Amino acid sequence: MQLRLDDTGFGGIEIFQNPQEFCYGVDAVLLADFASKPPSAAKEKSRIIDLGTGTGIVPLILSHKTKAGEIMGVEVQEASWKLAERNRVHNGLADRLKFINCDINELKDESLRGSFDIVTSNPPYTAGSCGIESANRAKMIARHETTASLDDFIARAAWLLRDKGDFYMVHRPGRLIDICESCRKHRLEPKELRFVSGKPMEKPNILLVHCVRNGKRQLKILEPLAVRNEDGSYTDEICRIYEKTVEQTE
Amino acid sequence: MQLRLDDTGFGGIEIFQNPQEFCYGVDAVLLADFASKPPSAAKEKSRIIDLGTGTGIVPLILSHKTKAGEIMGVEVQEASWKLAERNRVHNGLADRLKFINCDINELKDESLRGSFDIVTSNPPYTAGSCGIESANRAKMIARHETTASLDDFIARAAWLLRDKGDFYMVHRPGRLIDICESCRKHRLEPKELRFVSGKPMEKPNILLVHCVRNGKRQLKILEPLAVRNEDGSYTDEICRIYEKTVEQTE
Repeated sequence: MQLRLDDTGFGGIEIFQNPQEFCYGVDAVLLADFASKPPSAAKEKSRIIDLGTGTGIVPLILSHKTKAGEIMGVEVQEASWKLAERNRVHNGLADRLKFINCDINELKDESLRGSFDIVTSNPPYTAGSCGIESANRAKMIARHETTASLDDFIARAAWLLRDKGDFYMVHRPGRLIDICESCRKHRLEPKELRFVSGKPMEKPNILLVHCVRNGKRQLKILEPLAVRNEDGSYTDEICRIYEKTVEQTE
Repeated sequence: MQLRLDDTGFGGIEIFQNPQEFCYGVDAVLLADFASKPPSAAKEKSRIIDLGTGTGIVPLILSHKTKAGEIMGVEVQEASWKLAERNRVHNGLADRLKFINCDINELKDESLRGSFDIVTSNPPYTAGSCGIESANRAKMIARHETTASLDDFIARAAWLLRDKGDFYMVHRPGRLIDICESCRKHRLEPKELRFVSGKPMEKPNILLVHCVRNGKRQLKILEPLAVRNEDGSYTDEICRIYEKTVEQTE
């Protein structure tokens, strides 16, 4: 296994990843930032759980961006989970982070039910039976709805959240209607949507969703976010999210 | 009644409106343009119906932008309907246009069912019981869900459309989830969404929705549209939609 140790750029946190399997991208970073901002910024004792955590990037960034007391991550693939465990210890976060190796559909311990303030998820984007299937099984599970569907992720998030708890998800804009339908079905009311595009005024390629468990119907579409300016440089907000100055990013 | 005769700017079409009641805005123009573009641009013999047509602005613009054979409009308010009738005759469109004075919920003639290729609607934006109610009853009915709800409009659109017919609606972005839920319930599958903002990269304040009756699940979020550039001038696309050169618009 060819491992790579990358500096995340967040408070010195480093992450072991296997480039032949799956490496985190901008989606995970946007999700972690979205989940750590007001109104529901994690308070000191809050509990967070990340569904489909891979090698743990979202919990790792959240440990830096929030004051959450306990951050859990659930990952079905054993190899990724082992890396998440290694990342936890490597970064001195053994106390605040906890990673579980299981299918989210098997996460049925009654003590977990309704016990989280925040659920985050960067689930597989592609429906099980369509899209080009990855020859590599690990990549396929990370990207396709093989072991759990979009609705499974949303249902499990609802089950894990306390009343009025917050659910943050990143997905593809094309799944918006399916996401809305599933969220309402499971009493996670969409409160904020944010569309992210490569450059300003382009079609979005990333969707950020914030729902509140048993929340009132009151949706805000936030201002869109562009990753890069017209000249190819990173936008100011992307620099803020990555906690870099423009010079560092260029 | 103080009437005003305005030049719409579309092929010499003029419209009588009562400024004390309700005058059309950019929403209606965007809707008419959205409904007259591919993939479902109205063909020569196609039949269109506009629900909540007011004084007929959407059918009037569609008569200019499409080759549709018959364009109907339904309006519950008698005073607005009378103006729509007057606009129809005034513009020499007595043959192609037809306006009906009735509540959309009363539009139950079996001969209408499934008989339209395209349904358009710019319904009242505000749910019946919230928002600041207009002291003027005519304005209130035009803006609030008093006589028919959002779900009523969507249900009636579905009932009027042929299989694979197109539904185009303009609404507020904050109602997106309600719109999606209602559309799927009535088998109008959302295929395209477009968010419109005052200036580039601002929060959107207008939402354009295109659904297909019994369509497959395949949603596209189109590139956003801004009405004005940063310097306050109209964007090129708004000039194209209004069929004006930049100089004319300024």
